[in-house]
Amino acid sequence: MKSRITELFGIEFPIIAGGMVWCSGWRLAAAVSEAGGLGLIGAGSMTPEVLREHIVKCKAATQKPFGVNVPLMKPDVLEIMNVIAEEHVPVVFTSAGSPKKWTKWLHDRAIKVAHVVASSTFARKCEEAGVDAVVAEGFEAGGHNGREETTTLCLIPAVRKATTLPLIAAGGIATGDAILAMKVLGAEGVQMGTRFALTVESSASDAFKQRCLNLAEGDTKLLLRKLSPTRLVKGGFFDAIEQAENNGATEQQLLDIIGTGASRRGIFEGDLETGELEIGQVASLLQGRPQQTVSEVFMELLEEYAAAKQSLN
Amino acid sequence: MKSRITELFGIEFPIIAGGMVWCSGWRLAAAVSEAGGLGLIGAGSMTPEVLREHIVKCKAATQKPFGVNVPLMKPDVLEIMNVIAEEHVPVVFTSAGSPKKWTKWLHDRAIKVAHVVASSTFARKCEEAGVDAVVAEGFEAGGHNGREETTTLCLIPAVRKATTLPLIAAGGIATGDAILAMKVLGAEGVQMGTRFALTVESSASDAFKQRCLNLAEGDTKLLLRKLSPTRLVKGGFFDAIEQAENNGATEQQLLDIIGTGASRRGIFEGDLETGELEIGQVASLLQGRPQQTVSEVFMELLEEYAAAKQSLN
Repeated sequence: MKSRITELFGIEFPIIAGGMVWCSGWRLAAAVSEAGGLGLIGAGSMTPEVLREHIVKCKAATQKPFGVNVPLMKPDVLEIMNVIAEEHVPVVFTSAGSPKKWTKWLHDRAIKVAHVVASSTFARKCEEAGVDAVVAEGFEAGGHNGREETTTLCLIPAVRKATTLPLIAAGGIATGDAILAMKVLGAEGVQMGTRFALTVESSASDAFKQRCLNLAEGDTKLLLRKLSPTRLVKGGFFDAIEQAENNGATEQQLLDIIGTGASRRGIFEGDLETGELEIGQVASLLQGRPQQTVSEVFMELLEEYAAAKQSLN
Repeated sequence: MKSRITELFGIEFPIIAGGMVWCSGWRLAAAVSEAGGLGLIGAGSMTPEVLREHIVKCKAATQKPFGVNVPLMKPDVLEIMNVIAEEHVPVVFTSAGSPKKWTKWLHDRAIKVAHVVASSTFARKCEEAGVDAVVAEGFEAGGHNGREETTTLCLIPAVRKATTLPLIAAGGIATGDAILAMKVLGAEGVQMGTRFALTVESSASDAFKQRCLNLAEGDTKLLLRKLSPTRLVKGGFFDAIEQAENNGATEQQLLDIIGTGASRRGIFEGDLETGELEIGQVASLLQGRPQQTVSEVFMELLEEYAAAKQSLN
């Protein structure tokens, strides 16, 4: 499984755990890096001081490389970046903003940069901005999502054509078979969110994990197209938004329904009714499975990958 | 590329051309079958007598097996099925209805049956109904689409787990790489619509083909969720529907906007403004390419498939 991605980050397997709000604390990041992948701490739901604590604990838990995911629309992005630089984090994944804003600043501090996109137009901007790798994430991904609704199957070949950057596929990937399928389409690594969000080491609440390990097909949907398209799990929060949208709700009416702290309530505190629940569409493929540790997930992925490759010959 | 699908239909390559309204006449079906795949005539836009004419011409143009796609919600489905049986068509692909309705009737007449689904729940119903193969079609497909919005990447492994039926992947597949990726996910063949809709042999208008060969990412979108979810190409017809939906239009208001004959006007007559234009999301991967013949498409697919397989080793 060696590729430009394993070389770039100095890791054994090109398997990256997405930095997810309320899931990706130091425990998950350290476990993924220890297993030979690249763990990411999700700064999206952290203050700068909470992030520093997670970085310090992650460094104590693993000698291997790990990174931080930074959504660039965060109001405290400068403080977040300063913490990352002060703590000598080797890798940053940026998302939800322009790759031009921070790439040079991070490179000046010897930090490697990957940027998340949902279209080949933005992938080209990544190449111009000089990022080290691009993550192309399809419509099936959980949480915030691209406006063009391009699925991973259509997106990966398009981004592969559009840039020469090392390419990480994301959205809809939860098995070793899917990792191999992405390689066939031109990706050199994968970023997986859903599978890792539901592990023992994820900081999400048990209630959230149990709910997401029991979803049927169709139990997540992309809503909030008028604000920022977001894949949500069905439930009370989902129903309120869907009904408002069917009735032609305005942006302001949707913002009022969302209120504040909804994703913390749903994912971290386990309030499945009024909380916002974000997970990828591929969760239904895990329906009925037990919570696994990160190390169990890695063993399964590597076995499936090898078996899928074998069966092609 | 031999599989249960090539055996079942007696064809060389497990590549099926979807039976598409206003695109899939006898010329396209015969060319695909002649090239070693399975061509389908699309009965969805044909009266029984027009269908008979296409079947007769197809039989004159090729000795190889071909089939007819029948959307089961067609009001004249009994007459359509009678024409198919009288003309000894060897294969029928059914869609948009229950696989229980027609499978035995067709089997009694020695006709092989594949049924199109968008979920593993319906795939299981296909197995119970005794169909010979199942087509699992993801969210990225053009035209009418499933309600659950499951993408091909998530759908194929789910259907593979749910049934033991020979499995044909559809939606988002336009290259040899994608055919191999689908095999990795457990499919034994593919159904491609978009790629064949835009060939020389397709009966769609040149204006439609040119428009669809020049789409950017994001230029198709799934609309009409309140009626029957449909992937449409951006344009005047699309804009009218999208705007009405954003304002909370009712089913009746949407039906009034759609009117009658919209897909004929758009696809067959080339009225790109008031006509309904249906194509798959993967069209943007063909952006700027010339119209090809079916035989050129097959040559490319087979070369790409072989190269992709080679590059894994």
